Amino acid sequence: MAEALDWGQVRDQVIEWVQEAGDILKKAVNGHLNVESKSSPDDLVTNMDKQTEQYFIDKVRSHFPGHRIVSEEGFGDEVQTTEGILWFIDPIDGTMNFVHQKRHFAISIGIYEEGVGKVAVIYDVIAGDIYHCVKGQGAFINKEKMRPLEDGELKTSVVAINGTWLSKNRRINPEIVRSIAEHTRGTRSYGSAAIELAYIANGILDGYLSMRLAPWDIGAGLILIDEVGGRVSQVDGSPLELLKQNSILIGKKGVHQEMLQYIQSGIAEGKYVEKK
Amino acid sequence: MAEALDWGQVRDQVIEWVQEAGDILKKAVNGHLNVESKSSPDDLVTNMDKQTEQYFIDKVRSHFPGHRIVSEEGFGDEVQTTEGILWFIDPIDGTMNFVHQKRHFAISIGIYEEGVGKVAVIYDVIAGDIYHCVKGQGAFINKEKMRPLEDGELKTSVVAINGTWLSKNRRINPEIVRSIAEHTRGTRSYGSAAIELAYIANGILDGYLSMRLAPWDIGAGLILIDEVGGRVSQVDGSPLELLKQNSILIGKKGVHQEMLQYIQSGIAEGKYVEKK
Repeated sequence: MAEALDWGQVRDQVIEWVQEAGDILKKAVNGHLNVESKSSPDDLVTNMDKQTEQYFIDKVRSHFPGHRIVSEEGFGDEVQTTEGILWFIDPIDGTMNFVHQKRHFAISIGIYEEGVGKVAVIYDVIAGDIYHCVKGQGAFINKEKMRPLEDGELKTSVVAINGTWLSKNRRINPEIVRSIAEHTRGTRSYGSAAIELAYIANGILDGYLSMRLAPWDIGAGLILIDEVGGRVSQVDGSPLELLKQNSILIGKKGVHQEMLQYIQSGIAEGKYVEKK
Repeated sequence: MAEALDWGQVRDQVIEWVQEAGDILKKAVNGHLNVESKSSPDDLVTNMDKQTEQYFIDKVRSHFPGHRIVSEEGFGDEVQTTEGILWFIDPIDGTMNFVHQKRHFAISIGIYEEGVGKVAVIYDVIAGDIYHCVKGQGAFINKEKMRPLEDGELKTSVVAINGTWLSKNRRINPEIVRSIAEHTRGTRSYGSAAIELAYIANGILDGYLSMRLAPWDIGAGLILIDEVGGRVSQVDGSPLELLKQNSILIGKKGVHQEMLQYIQSGIAEGKYVEKK
């Protein structure tokens, strides 16, 4: 029964699994796996994505029958409601990094009960860092407890914004995003939402904006950020919807607030922001 | 005498030094050093920058008297010509990352003889990766030899471009930079030129554009990139000047060519690009 779950034990179990799966990804990324000769780099990823997702789905099915799974490669369940216990699984977050850069990709697993985040595990495989938490028990990087996020100001902040949103795109008038970027101390872009969210939770980034993230991209990260007191919304300030694609605006309290003000000013001036 | 130098031995010596200095930076970044209580995070960096630079300068002065040093914190020499042997030393490349992110900063050391790159060492301290080469002997990440860069196309490339150049700035019309970004597979920004240049050499980024880099930012990286056959110029295609601030455009052969075409089109349309 869901009531009987010891979330600390679940977290420990998930950490064991991501380490095992991570070991396989490390070998794959270093080319020690036998890859069929006709495979393109993209095929390799697809295979590793699918293989890794299947690994987790087999584990969840056998250890936690009755739990449902929302996952990137589609081996999970058709999930329409947040009832019961839901696993959000991204076997390789940062696919392009996995192929191109052989680093800066992560396994991301978030577990929710009745829509409330309970356990998060994000494994930055090559860096060897596991970001994890059980709701209410603090967030950790490996064995080190993260501190609650302090307040912050945009002008002294480093914010993750991909160049896509600063350039012409279909989802937001880039002038709005530039008005934010120009008021930061600097911007960064790592190409893995799971890692970028873990960085926010760990206080090494101060804010984040993205126009298009899937539930499995953010399922774990949102739990970590909530645990350390970060602010989260869609870019127009409306609440996130766990089962849908979302735009996302995250930050330390003051940073989130300032970014939101720039976006709302842009909207008031008639600049386009996609509604979900 | 310069003629007698064994560059392989010099490289090994520099690697030993960056490891020793890196150990101190690791402790500093984790807060295990005694930092005076009134110091701001920026003071800490300044102190560590200066302390680390002084460490290298002392080493070079005692082991290689007669060599001259171009370095960020100004403890080096007044260098007006590329005659003799020049060391380009950046004790902490990615200062903001050092303070904010406690990772993604590097020690960067490049050695030139009569203007020709001979030895490069870039140490990504937290990742633990040392990128190094002796001219003509291949480039390495740790003990692994890097492959020569293949040709590439912009549309399948991941290019490092900081958000600064996609937004309003004094050095380039951002429309030009956006025209490049929009034709890539994706952009990234890590906040350390030395690491980004090492990534290019190692084939995990395909291109790079920046409008403002100092000699110590790029001294080592350029040697690595030359060793693996990457293309390098200022953004308007003119050659770099080793002792000045430069704009920089780097990439695999085809990627450099395509980026340059977008820039030259922009210039032909009257869009602003700063001349050095």
